[in-house]
Amino acid sequence: MTDMPTIQDIYAARPHVYRYLKPTPLHHYTTLSDLVGAQVYIKHENHQPVGAFKVRGGLVMAAGLTPAQRKAGLFTASTGNHGQSIAYASRANGIKATIAVPEGANPGKVAAMRGLGAEVVFHGKDFDSAREWIMEIAAEKGGTFVSPTDEPLIHGVGTNALEILEDLPDVDVILVPVGAGSGACGTSIAAKTINPKIKVIGVQSTQAPAMQLSWETGKLVTGKMGTFAEGIATRVPFENTQRIMRKYLDDFVLVDDEDIKKAIVLLLEHTHNLAEGAGAAPLAAALQMKARLAGKKVVLVMSGGNLAVERLSEILCSGLPAA
Amino acid sequence: MTDMPTIQDIYAARPHVYRYLKPTPLHHYTTLSDLVGAQVYIKHENHQPVGAFKVRGGLVMAAGLTPAQRKAGLFTASTGNHGQSIAYASRANGIKATIAVPEGANPGKVAAMRGLGAEVVFHGKDFDSAREWIMEIAAEKGGTFVSPTDEPLIHGVGTNALEILEDLPDVDVILVPVGAGSGACGTSIAAKTINPKIKVIGVQSTQAPAMQLSWETGKLVTGKMGTFAEGIATRVPFENTQRIMRKYLDDFVLVDDEDIKKAIVLLLEHTHNLAEGAGAAPLAAALQMKARLAGKKVVLVMSGGNLAVERLSEILCSGLPAA
Repeated sequence: MTDMPTIQDIYAARPHVYRYLKPTPLHHYTTLSDLVGAQVYIKHENHQPVGAFKVRGGLVMAAGLTPAQRKAGLFTASTGNHGQSIAYASRANGIKATIAVPEGANPGKVAAMRGLGAEVVFHGKDFDSAREWIMEIAAEKGGTFVSPTDEPLIHGVGTNALEILEDLPDVDVILVPVGAGSGACGTSIAAKTINPKIKVIGVQSTQAPAMQLSWETGKLVTGKMGTFAEGIATRVPFENTQRIMRKYLDDFVLVDDEDIKKAIVLLLEHTHNLAEGAGAAPLAAALQMKARLAGKKVVLVMSGGNLAVERLSEILCSGLPAA
Repeated sequence: MTDMPTIQDIYAARPHVYRYLKPTPLHHYTTLSDLVGAQVYIKHENHQPVGAFKVRGGLVMAAGLTPAQRKAGLFTASTGNHGQSIAYASRANGIKATIAVPEGANPGKVAAMRGLGAEVVFHGKDFDSAREWIMEIAAEKGGTFVSPTDEPLIHGVGTNALEILEDLPDVDVILVPVGAGSGACGTSIAAKTINPKIKVIGVQSTQAPAMQLSWETGKLVTGKMGTFAEGIATRVPFENTQRIMRKYLDDFVLVDDEDIKKAIVLLLEHTHNLAEGAGAAPLAAALQMKARLAGKKVVLVMSGGNLAVERLSEILCSGLPAA
């Protein structure tokens, strides 16, 4: 068994993160607290320049490249937020980024990647098809393929948890959305190392449970992929993040897409922040597990915020929930 | 003529602001830049804990109270964001706050003020009726009445402009919404003192132009009050902020409510941030004055973000603008 990332790696990542980014706020919300029956805080990773915590990791990865790697460029596949992170970090470092996205990818995320100077290529029906294809291109061109679970990404995203602990040292529970798992890994490594009593709980959609099923069974289980929330839509699980989550994660829950949509509306109403499905999933989970959270200090990691306005309109104009 | 606030006052306010708040981000948006034909940056004051830059001022005001004033409590009137600011600062300092709001005030803002521990009392049809009434109550009870244009509030809000200049020293234009005027005053004092070439431009709604008319004519002009954007809805102008704006503000433009609503949708689409009318008015103004802004570095101050979800649904579900 190879080494796992540690909190030292996360501390070492901080200077690379803060060279470009500010710490994000952790706000307490009274009305959400009343709804959940706990003290509810939101870690506003949706306030990052690309609207998601992944940007922390991209910057750490780019900082570690050799001059030859920088020159040959970065290649990756993404449903959106990981790609925006790589595009942001590439622009900041003067590197060319080529990003494969599945057909039908969130148009706002695609526009944002292009706005950041990345070349975006559509390929295949889901993340995994796009990934396999772009890996071949990267190999042909001698560029560096960045997997969404590469360790520097985990180190970078973990800095979000250090900020949580600085602002709220007596946090009891952190709920974090899981896509490929870099966020859950970085968060749980940092939080559990500093205070093993903190419970770190991953959240995925019932409509795309591959990572949750793999965590629960201890095997790599490919799942169905029917969620609207592309940030947590994983069909083929990742071994390296599973390995870390098996060690550090306390629990991993599933929430239904319909409850995620309700959580998006509640977050708009009570925090005036726009969350995409992945960013709202932790609130949906908190409302589902109220009994376990009663009276505790609970942090919901809101990552990310990149909901297409057309999708928001569908949710709000369908009359869900009853106003 | 009495003294005006200076940049020294704003620097002196900083420690009181940063005791509780973090600097907010200034993000560049490529797609908005393309729409406006300028380099567009947003100063995300909507990321503040109460969703508006006024919270900076409340903290500075509370820091300057005597022990007797703290004990007797604070009284103010507000359509929402100023009241949330006073409620936030009062809670942080263990002070009782009583806030008069006009009938029909934004329910989310009222809930937020109550969530922060303030006593909220409905009185009168608009801000000015609520204000006159609560001033009498404050006098009866020996408490301190806080006007939304009191100088410590201006000092506090000015700290937002220092942050803009730190992040973007070569900014050309800052567009700032005007309600009572504390934000425009603090911003213009700081920006113009540091670099007189920076243009600071106020924005109000055509449907509630009292502050703009007063600035343009040099007299105090009471205006109509028909805007949905309560953050910039001023019927009776304020002399002390007018005096400062006449000295420091470069221009003051009006935008139609319909264009503000379109700007709310554009901001959701291109920045994934929810703006209330006041927070979106600067983008509406930028789109209206594209020729003047061409190629420049333009900062839009997004304050605040407290749009009721019911109002957002009205805007999105009415089919405005054509998707």
